[in-house]
Amino acid sequence: MSSADILGYAAGALTAFTFLPQVIKTWKSKSAKDISLNMFIIAFVNEIMWLVYGFMLDNWVIILTNAVMLGMSGFMIALKLKYNHQ
Amino acid sequence: MSSADILGYAAGALTAFTFLPQVIKTWKSKSAKDISLNMFIIAFVNEIMWLVYGFMLDNWVIILTNAVMLGMSGFMIALKLKYNHQ
Repeated sequence: MSSADILGYAAGALTAFTFLPQVIKTWKSKSAKDISLNMFIIAFVNEIMWLVYGFMLDNWVIILTNAVMLGMSGFMIALKLKYNHQ
Repeated sequence: MSSADILGYAAGALTAFTFLPQVIKTWKSKSAKDISLNMFIIAFVNEIMWLVYGFMLDNWVIILTNAVMLGMSGFMIALKLKYNHQ
């Protein structure tokens, strides 16, 4: 593996968990007034696109990264709708 | 260009603007209490990694996408720090 490959895998692994601190914060605080619903709707739709792209290329790094992000953005949409007014 | 290429470019273009609705919302509302600072710090560091990766591969799709996201996550960090208690 080249150093570019290693950096790419490390960057991809970190990308997958970008939303995790927000999920934990919103889950604990039960407050989501300041969160943009549109941001997570865009992310959700976008990750479906990336998943389809990953399957077309049979690239499991893309598939796994975006499966994790799809789950987290879906969960954030649910938290936003539940805790919007608190 | 294959249909996979077209989907990849469309997905990448959408990814670049994922944070935009949050930037606009926080800018207008001047309230960032519910926003996770850690999420945008992770995103900021992660986009520097992707930028380096993009330059190593000389891939301008990766470079441009992550330059946009780096700017937006840096701006969100500034907004979070400014409006955290409002």
